[in-house]
Amino acid sequence: MNSVEEPQSDTPLLDKISSPADVRQLNRSQLAHLCDELRRDLIKSINQVGGHFASSLGVVELTVALHAVFDTPHDRLVWDVGHQAYIHKILTGRRQQFIRVRSLGGISGFPRRSESIYDAFGAGHAGTSISAAAGMIEASHHDYAARADRRVVAVIGDGAMTAGMAFEALNHSGQLKRQLIVVLNDNGMSIAPNVGALSWAFSRTLTGRFSTSARRHFKSLVRRGFIPQTFYRTLDRVEDVTQGFFSLPAMLFESFGYRYIGPIDGHNIEQLIQALERAKEQDGPVLVHAQTLKGKGFSPAEADPVKYHAVGPFALLRKRMFGLPHKNKVHEIPPTYTEIFGRTMVELCHKDKRVVGITAAMPDGTGLDVLAREMPDRFFDVAIAEQHAVTFAAGLAAEGMRPVCAIYSSFLQRAFDQIMHDVCLQSLPVIFAMDRAGLVGEDGPTHHGVFDLAYLRMFPNMTLMAPKDEAELRDMLHTAASRCNGPVAIRYPRGAGIGAAMPPKPRLIEIGRAEVLKQAIMPADSALIIALGQTVHPALDAAKELIRRGIDCTVVNARFVKPLDEQLLHELITHHALVVTVEDHVLQGGFGSAVLEFMADAGLSAQQTLIRLGIGDSFVEHGSQRELRHKHGIDKDAIVVRVTAAMMKRQVRKPQSSLPFSALRH
Amino acid sequence: MNSVEEPQSDTPLLDKISSPADVRQLNRSQLAHLCDELRRDLIKSINQVGGHFASSLGVVELTVALHAVFDTPHDRLVWDVGHQAYIHKILTGRRQQFIRVRSLGGISGFPRRSESIYDAFGAGHAGTSISAAAGMIEASHHDYAARADRRVVAVIGDGAMTAGMAFEALNHSGQLKRQLIVVLNDNGMSIAPNVGALSWAFSRTLTGRFSTSARRHFKSLVRRGFIPQTFYRTLDRVEDVTQGFFSLPAMLFESFGYRYIGPIDGHNIEQLIQALERAKEQDGPVLVHAQTLKGKGFSPAEADPVKYHAVGPFALLRKRMFGLPHKNKVHEIPPTYTEIFGRTMVELCHKDKRVVGITAAMPDGTGLDVLAREMPDRFFDVAIAEQHAVTFAAGLAAEGMRPVCAIYSSFLQRAFDQIMHDVCLQSLPVIFAMDRAGLVGEDGPTHHGVFDLAYLRMFPNMTLMAPKDEAELRDMLHTAASRCNGPVAIRYPRGAGIGAAMPPKPRLIEIGRAEVLKQAIMPADSALIIALGQTVHPALDAAKELIRRGIDCTVVNARFVKPLDEQLLHELITHHALVVTVEDHVLQGGFGSAVLEFMADAGLSAQQTLIRLGIGDSFVEHGSQRELRHKHGIDKDAIVVRVTAAMMKRQVRKPQSSLPFSALRH
Repeated sequence: MNSVEEPQSDTPLLDKISSPADVRQLNRSQLAHLCDELRRDLIKSINQVGGHFASSLGVVELTVALHAVFDTPHDRLVWDVGHQAYIHKILTGRRQQFIRVRSLGGISGFPRRSESIYDAFGAGHAGTSISAAAGMIEASHHDYAARADRRVVAVIGDGAMTAGMAFEALNHSGQLKRQLIVVLNDNGMSIAPNVGALSWAFSRTLTGRFSTSARRHFKSLVRRGFIPQTFYRTLDRVEDVTQGFFSLPAMLFESFGYRYIGPIDGHNIEQLIQALERAKEQDGPVLVHAQTLKGKGFSPAEADPVKYHAVGPFALLRKRMFGLPHKNKVHEIPPTYTEIFGRTMVELCHKDKRVVGITAAMPDGTGLDVLAREMPDRFFDVAIAEQHAVTFAAGLAAEGMRPVCAIYSSFLQRAFDQIMHDVCLQSLPVIFAMDRAGLVGEDGPTHHGVFDLAYLRMFPNMTLMAPKDEAELRDMLHTAASRCNGPVAIRYPRGAGIGAAMPPKPRLIEIGRAEVLKQAIMPADSALIIALGQTVHPALDAAKELIRRGIDCTVVNARFVKPLDEQLLHELITHHALVVTVEDHVLQGGFGSAVLEFMADAGLSAQQTLIRLGIGDSFVEHGSQRELRHKHGIDKDAIVVRVTAAMMKRQVRKPQSSLPFSALRH
Repeated sequence: MNSVEEPQSDTPLLDKISSPADVRQLNRSQLAHLCDELRRDLIKSINQVGGHFASSLGVVELTVALHAVFDTPHDRLVWDVGHQAYIHKILTGRRQQFIRVRSLGGISGFPRRSESIYDAFGAGHAGTSISAAAGMIEASHHDYAARADRRVVAVIGDGAMTAGMAFEALNHSGQLKRQLIVVLNDNGMSIAPNVGALSWAFSRTLTGRFSTSARRHFKSLVRRGFIPQTFYRTLDRVEDVTQGFFSLPAMLFESFGYRYIGPIDGHNIEQLIQALERAKEQDGPVLVHAQTLKGKGFSPAEADPVKYHAVGPFALLRKRMFGLPHKNKVHEIPPTYTEIFGRTMVELCHKDKRVVGITAAMPDGTGLDVLAREMPDRFFDVAIAEQHAVTFAAGLAAEGMRPVCAIYSSFLQRAFDQIMHDVCLQSLPVIFAMDRAGLVGEDGPTHHGVFDLAYLRMFPNMTLMAPKDEAELRDMLHTAASRCNGPVAIRYPRGAGIGAAMPPKPRLIEIGRAEVLKQAIMPADSALIIALGQTVHPALDAAKELIRRGIDCTVVNARFVKPLDEQLLHELITHHALVVTVEDHVLQGGFGSAVLEFMADAGLSAQQTLIRLGIGDSFVEHGSQRELRHKHGIDKDAIVVRVTAAMMKRQVRKPQSSLPFSALRH
């Protein structure tokens, strides 16, 4: 970075920072100024490019203090979840790249080991940082690594702390007796305001209860002359001193073997540095409890941090919006799958007394906020606790209810074992509504929901569906609630639907029945495209283009991955020239593999080679959904290219390949 | 059950119990006697049939008290893990069936909803009970179920409490404010003695620390005449009264919104009933802390509860064994995979400084106890915390170590998300040693490791292996540690190896290279059997039998599920008359599917139909490994039958089917 100051820069200190080493050259007053500059710079960046906003504004001082006190990257900084790491990225040489954050080829919105030596450990899902940091500090004390002077700091929000694995990590790491430093970034909410006893504990000191009864007792003793007044005053002071010790968070963390420092003001750089310096002196595990304000410094975000958790670009200070993100006009963009899901849940709950909705700290993200407002007694938010959410649902189902677990596809991975052990093994009627299935876009590899078909299809008793549009999502939810007596999972993509017409009443779907959307005139010379979920409409568009190229197609909306519509597939596969499956999912064990297995078992393989379109065997980066779907060969163009190539090859009778689309072009 | 007393019965009260209603007819003194009879009866039963022993002996009084106080089955009793439910089974009409516990067709060793209306919720894995019970109590208060008089009780051990999902459940359920009763069965150990801060917290009261400083202060005041002696004595009494409130478990659970009752003596039926009656009167969540002794009443089990956790049949009071289980003579039975794994870990740790072993509360079960004894600084027991175990390993690997996570195949399901998010996405060199893969036998469906290939194969960067015998397990571990720079998983079965010779030095295996163990003379007229792991030797035996029947075979030890040996497979598949895969794993997405996908992508499907032998689409019950392998068509006989049938069908050119073996015979 150029050290020449630009004239008129409103970020003179920040302009000189090319790495955290430069931060460590500043004095306290300069650090405070740097925080102001960072906050301005971040608001400006986000204004241009969007991103996770409120969390990063809340940790400006904390991030500066961490880099000022610790010798990064020799010392390791592990961010939990990671969407609060924007300031960290700005300070570690990625300020100029911010314009391309979360864009294809640009920097990630989360820490990534592959992106910077300052990103000691990647993140995206909640609750992993203490475990990772415990492993890292243990390694540094080990014969092999032998870097005993290394400090390791995990920064975890109070919301992420509700994840079971964070508890597991505290329970184990406390006894390791290493200098593991955990910073609790307590903003009283994770994404939505926290639920559960833990959040209550953080905000409360025991002295309330203790002092009430103890003081009453002592007062009466003082009144009756048993104790001199001076002693009563001494006791008062003792209580002040011991208050930290008796506060609930202190008790909780000390019981895990952690030394507790706090609570401190997370926006006071002086206090933060003092606390971190103290933590640095400890020779055992220590927890620094910093209280912060999500969205700090940008008043609309402070007032509504849920809305500003992640935002699209918005025009700063643009008056007519009062700081709100650009809002898509309702008549231009169809409602999202999320909105339709939320509305359908209200509809379902009115119709069926057995139905309730469960979210793991994502009422807004899943669309269940509507249900929470309209029918609060039919709504449960269990905190960031997907494992508990699923077994809690199993308990409800065991007593005859029809719980709907609304959990993002990639987050439901946390409850893989519970789905098998508590739901499928007992064949309980729990409905899994998996939003953000397929390629989610800018959030990248930790958030793509591209494993769900494979991880749910293997379990006996499971019924697994994917709607072609938002109207079918509604139909499938009603079908699941009224026609299924075992587990059902419905996956649907992030973002807007196709604008499908909503009939007054939902239509029930026959379980395991696919739908032929377009029938080829001469099947024996035509391609059969079996598409699933979000890929159905691209497949239909591809069919139109293929007809223009002289290739007729039959297009099937598979609807079900399990059970497959074996009768229909058998008939169609037998009579077509070529079979192609399309899915927004990995090819290892996904929908195409289910069709392959069916074909092999039914003896159809010899007659027909299957071409499977889907995600290849590598993690998918971040980028827009449109870009990623194109790059990974599951959009209309990809289908056209692959089907055309295969039909042409077929005429020369060469073996067919199902490499992903992108591989064909290189 | 016949109510006529047998003469000379040493269990006169128990003989009259046909359901818990009969228990509720007894007075306190009779209940105490019933406990003695139950303990005798259980020791007698286990002596004949084996099973989970120590846990059930520890909860005799607790189980009797629960059925005496609560109106089961109207009130719901949810057992965590469930191997402590033998007494519960005896009291709920299953005493006569005990002779067939854990046998094929007999009753399960765990609670099962399908087995009895008294088994309110199934179990097997740790930490699920509070979530399930929370769902059940919530349902009973709901409009639909409307059974507000129903009580729901979860019984959870202190070990299971270390599972993150139990913490998630406490955090959420406390705020539901329903009359959820959690009984903490605290025996100071789960299977192995507990690790972590939680176990320390359970055994400690805060008053220790509080009183030390406070007493010192007060004593000096008394000495100096500020406080009269009488007041000091009063204070002492106040401290006694408040002790329960200030104890760490009390603090912990009260912070979760639970009323705390305890600790009480879990072998005192009087105290137990009083505590449970008190719990029954609460109108909010309540935790009853009962301290028990694992193995109570049978002195060898009390002295060594780890050994007696689950035992085979043993001869009671047989002197020469001093109560120990029948021990297989070393020269008769080859060492288990577990033993070889343990020894290899010690060997590896001596050779490679980077290697450490991690277990989730299973040092003995995984064989890591040897490492723990010989090289304690290279061993970590993280408690029942598979999620943390995996991300902790990822942290170690990020700093250059080579951690080996030794976790049973079915328990590793808990860490599915962490394997993807923390290990595979960052391609960190964590080695997963998955014992108990395939059909485990008597523990049944919760413990069969039949999903691991499918759930690991889908992740990019993963290398996935299975050894044909215990010597190859050693080779694979050495290979993983020295040749792999990303995640590796090795799966191997429960039980004895084949007695393979152990060479002085391990042999390194080329990654992705399969092994031809037997080559057919005329491939074009022969079957190709591609077997994986435990099924390799049955496949070889089948080949011998098939040759006698005039069918020659090539037998391949696949070794790798990912990456497949594509070159070899391509060559062999092209030149054989028939291809069969064999795996002790579900057919949905497993090893056979990987071969299918390869064949489809390589254009081989048209030339060759694949027959996949493996577990069909239903959960596998309990029974011996031999029985289950036969029943589900993956043993020698099954391979012989399927290959013979397919070769005969092939001659008449009919399409081939790959239904499981058992389906063929019905």
